[in-house]
Amino acid sequence: MKLTTEQLQEIKNQQSQEAKTKRVTVPELEKVLYEALPALDHGFVRVVDYMGDDTSIVQSARVSYGKGTKQVSTDSGLIRYLMRHWHSTPFEMCEIKYHIKLPIFIARQWIRHRTANVNEYSARYSILDKEFYLPSLENLAAQSTSNRQGRGNVLEGEQAKEVLELLKNDAERTYSNYEIMLNEKFDGSTIDAERKGLARELARMNLTLNTYTQWYWKTDLLNLMNFLRLRADHHAQYEIRVYADIMLDTVKKWVPITYDAFMDYRVGGTEVSAKGKKIIQKFIKNENITLEESGLSKREWNELMEAFELDHKLIK
Amino acid sequence: MKLTTEQLQEIKNQQSQEAKTKRVTVPELEKVLYEALPALDHGFVRVVDYMGDDTSIVQSARVSYGKGTKQVSTDSGLIRYLMRHWHSTPFEMCEIKYHIKLPIFIARQWIRHRTANVNEYSARYSILDKEFYLPSLENLAAQSTSNRQGRGNVLEGEQAKEVLELLKNDAERTYSNYEIMLNEKFDGSTIDAERKGLARELARMNLTLNTYTQWYWKTDLLNLMNFLRLRADHHAQYEIRVYADIMLDTVKKWVPITYDAFMDYRVGGTEVSAKGKKIIQKFIKNENITLEESGLSKREWNELMEAFELDHKLIK
Amino acid sequence: MKLTTEQLQEIKNQQSQEAKTKRVTVPELEKVLYEALPALDHGFVRVVDYMGDDTSIVQSARVSYGKGTKQVSTDSGLIRYLMRHWHSTPFEMCEIKYHIKLPIFIARQWIRHRTANVNEYSARYSILDKEFYLPSLENLAAQSTSNRQGRGNVLEGEQAKEVLELLKNDAERTYSNYEIMLNEKFDGSTIDAERKGLARELARMNLTLNTYTQWYWKTDLLNLMNFLRLRADHHAQYEIRVYADIMLDTVKKWVPITYDAFMDYRVGGTEVSAKGKKIIQKFIKNENITLEESGLSKREWNELMEAFELDHKLIK
Amino acid sequence: MKLTTEQLQEIKNQQSQEAKTKRVTVPELEKVLYEALPALDHGFVRVVDYMGDDTSIVQSARVSYGKGTKQVSTDSGLIRYLMRHWHSTPFEMCEIKYHIKLPIFIARQWIRHRTANVNEYSARYSILDKEFYLPSLENLAAQSTSNRQGRGNVLEGEQAKEVLELLKNDAERTYSNYEIMLNEKFDGSTIDAERKGLARELARMNLTLNTYTQWYWKTDLLNLMNFLRLRADHHAQYEIRVYADIMLDTVKKWVPITYDAFMDYRVGGTEVSAKGKKIIQKFIKNENITLEESGLSKREWNELMEAFELDHKLIK
Repeated sequence: MKLTTEQLQEIKNQQSQEAKTKRVTVPELEKVLYEALPALDHGFVRVVDYMGDDTSIVQSARVSYGKGTKQVSTDSGLIRYLMRHWHSTPFEMCEIKYHIKLPIFIARQWIRHRTANVNEYSARYSILDKEFYLPSLENLAAQSTSNRQGRGNVLEGEQAKEVLELLKNDAERTYSNYEIMLNEKFDGSTIDAERKGLARELARMNLTLNTYTQWYWKTDLLNLMNFLRLRADHHAQYEIRVYADIMLDTVKKWVPITYDAFMDYRVGGTEVSAKGKKIIQKFIKNENITLEESGLSKREWNELMEAFELDHKLIK
Repeated sequence: MKLTTEQLQEIKNQQSQEAKTKRVTVPELEKVLYEALPALDHGFVRVVDYMGDDTSIVQSARVSYGKGTKQVSTDSGLIRYLMRHWHSTPFEMCEIKYHIKLPIFIARQWIRHRTANVNEYSARYSILDKEFYLPSLENLAAQSTSNRQGRGNVLEGEQAKEVLELLKNDAERTYSNYEIMLNEKFDGSTIDAERKGLARELARMNLTLNTYTQWYWKTDLLNLMNFLRLRADHHAQYEIRVYADIMLDTVKKWVPITYDAFMDYRVGGTEVSAKGKKIIQKFIKNENITLEESGLSKREWNELMEAFELDHKLIK
Repeated sequence: MKLTTEQLQEIKNQQSQEAKTKRVTVPELEKVLYEALPALDHGFVRVVDYMGDDTSIVQSARVSYGKGTKQVSTDSGLIRYLMRHWHSTPFEMCEIKYHIKLPIFIARQWIRHRTANVNEYSARYSILDKEFYLPSLENLAAQSTSNRQGRGNVLEGEQAKEVLELLKNDAERTYSNYEIMLNEKFDGSTIDAERKGLARELARMNLTLNTYTQWYWKTDLLNLMNFLRLRADHHAQYEIRVYADIMLDTVKKWVPITYDAFMDYRVGGTEVSAKGKKIIQKFIKNENITLEESGLSKREWNELMEAFELDHKLIK
Repeated sequence: MKLTTEQLQEIKNQQSQEAKTKRVTVPELEKVLYEALPALDHGFVRVVDYMGDDTSIVQSARVSYGKGTKQVSTDSGLIRYLMRHWHSTPFEMCEIKYHIKLPIFIARQWIRHRTANVNEYSARYSILDKEFYLPSLENLAAQSTSNRQGRGNVLEGEQAKEVLELLKNDAERTYSNYEIMLNEKFDGSTIDAERKGLARELARMNLTLNTYTQWYWKTDLLNLMNFLRLRADHHAQYEIRVYADIMLDTVKKWVPITYDAFMDYRVGGTEVSAKGKKIIQKFIKNENITLEESGLSKREWNELMEAFELDHKLIK
């Protein structure tokens, strides 16, 4: 990640501003406020604003349940209770705003989470930066043969080099032709004073999907956790997981009690179906149950065994 | 409005906390932060948290439009442009959280605005306060004879007194019976130690709709303006307008530039249909047009004339 | 439930209309279309329109995953897979519209589910029906002593009668005073020709929360399942569960494959936290683990044991 | 637009299915149901399901306002009233589902409308079709010199040819390299049996933004109108306007009364600010007002004059 002088100056300015406030404040998060945390080769994650902390969740819950919450004596106990029983609205009382730089094909995945506010850099109005994502060699994975949406082993030797070469050349050539069509270089200089440039809203269609874009992305804590639960999961595409992991770390700084409950109940937890419950009950009683008796498909059976790390029960 | 000692203490505590922050801060709004601004006879509006200010809107817009926004030189010019052209997303970048105390029948109207986060005091868990809304005499209006949803003249003399008496007695009696069913007084004391109380989630059904409830209500600036546009309008029910007017005033303190644009384009502005536009054009050219030629209904014609204060063109 | 002649006629008219369509159609659901399915003493649930069926979910999933879904050979297998892995968007492709009559205090709970479209009967415009909910004797439960939000044993003998009497009298008296204030009876007749009536938007505040209201409520299948998962649960208040159970039955008629998957994975399933997983693993290996070692609170431990019906492991 | 044999067969199958239903049905829309209406060079718009019609809107409004709506005697009068006064919820009672094929850079604009349900063809799972958008010569516009987001005159002669050549070559080359990386042709055949293919979720990043994707897009009528109001507007990018215009035509077939009201109040109407209203009032009274006195910027003044076609009042 390389920031322009202009960006570095902006970050410096923002970090040097200091005001007094009566609002709840989170010193741990303030430490990284505005900082550009690097992601992939040219991307970043910046926390640019936030509202509320762990106590805001507790406060809202106590307004809802009134004296009914007094029996849960600690903030941590209450937050764990809310998380366990899917009480969602108190978590909506905290809000965070990120500034993210990311490749377009990842932005397309990301935007499917609809319950957030977004302002994206517009290529109708302005020229996109000359930056595109190129995977590192260890992330250049082959298509999985067992899983239609997943990655298998890493590509090796010559083929890996070739793929990188193709990605690099195509991104550079299409960007360079983008400039020619615009009749304008990425730095704003005109190419041929005799010519007009193609409309930006059209020229952008020539760019490849690994070109970087950026946006402000604001959401509440509940929806952020929904996002992170899916995108920090090992089934998620590596490139979005990189962002989710960085954001997970900012959540830890921001609302540490909620973070712990989230890791325990959502990220580290598992769901067991009615049929799955019967199997587990048999296991606990030391009784046998076959795949056929379980009513599960082989795939589903194995997912259950993996969730409880019962490797010897896996069926090939 | 009368606050309990407990509430007064909580407000005092919140107002005395002071922290340093690098976030954007609005001194004018900080002045009234946590304050209980009175509404109706027992209600209040409290701003308990906020995120962003006018510059946050500008910043988001400039990220979206990049250099494209440089031609709009001032923040005020840009915000007016965004408001005029219904660019909604930059206004979503600001967030505010209120603590509101309000009668249940108003809460039922309010909650129809779905794009907000809400934590309401739960009468399943806790006993509702012994407070109910009674209109002042000048707000005791008769049903309008011309408008099915509106108010006509104020009720007079004896009848007004009678109505108030009925409202008061019924609210008091139903609340008192609520306590009897709960076998518990509003202050938590048991009525008859030999008896069990009816479940709270059931007993509450005996309360009248003017009983007060309270909630935390958090929303972004765009949706807040949508709410205020409808609820601060003179067509809105007086009782919700009281709250909207107070909130409008907090918006003025929070984002003064946006407030001005909002008042000019939304609150003070009007919409003209394609047919209405033709009529206005005729008027400007000093040409006549009759109701029949206009294609409007009488009602719609009059709404247009009223919008432009053309009283002599009203049709009875 | 007693329908007016007008309502009965409307239902008859709707049920007798028949058209040809190329849309997907569900004969089982058509059989109960428009029918008023009774709920509580005066309420009902009516399915008044729907869009899509089980195949619509499959079709959307196959568009998303393309040839990637071919390995899941059956519709049922695919729907189970989607449900298990929280793939939400295909379930959003089905839509249903209900007409519901329900007590106001239940409507207030219901409306907290924000992702639905609602048109409620407006007491600003019209007079509410003279109907209020009175629980049957077996539903007149005492406040639970162990659970702040729950019900304990049923109230007995005299006290039960007394409570019912209070509820009935208060509802009748407040309704009758509502009519007096309106100067209009529920059937539209004027009470005193010499007087004006109080504005409807004001008079309604005198009604108790067990008065019935009605609305059109439209939602997609995903959000309907979220609603049913919470509201058909045994923790939900009995009065809303009655509605949820009826709706669950309409879901079974509408999308039977999805219904089965929903019952298996959501309703009959359970969630296990990271800490809970470790306990279950110990149990399967016939190893002991104490409450202290588990890191759970007593309450959470017992919830886990109950989920797996391990009654002998409960801690008092 | 060229459909595959498989697609043509699917459409034929869907169109030949016919069932009886008691739901409201719209014969005019049924005529084009499932039809692939061509958009741009390879795209299409297909209506694949719908729920409700004009009478559903009226029915919901009458439930809300009860007898209060009886004074608006006709369905058309009521729908016009609802549209004029921004009563939004009745329009949410109708739902429609489209199957759309469109270039990715347009899909990125489209998806910013969040209140819809979407299932997009996933390039993580499957190979994208070998189809990309190439503008026709008359749509190959230069960047506007006066408007940062708009188009100016059409590019001419050699330059136009060159641009088309660049777009075509780059799309073809990047697609061909996409196949090489995947080690698989668009038709599913393997290129080199000795090699593994790069994971699909990675290879897709090499495609250009004019590659076609497709999705199911389902929304209610209110949100559809919000979409169309912005995207069928002359400020919208031509390529998305093509889709909006086709969809506008399906709305006309589906809900003709609502369509007329929408065209009159939203599409053909205009908004006038508080300041703008004063200017119009002066004009009607034959009084003069200068730009300075108006308080408007030159740009805003001219927008107002254009809205009312007062060309002689434009200020250069």
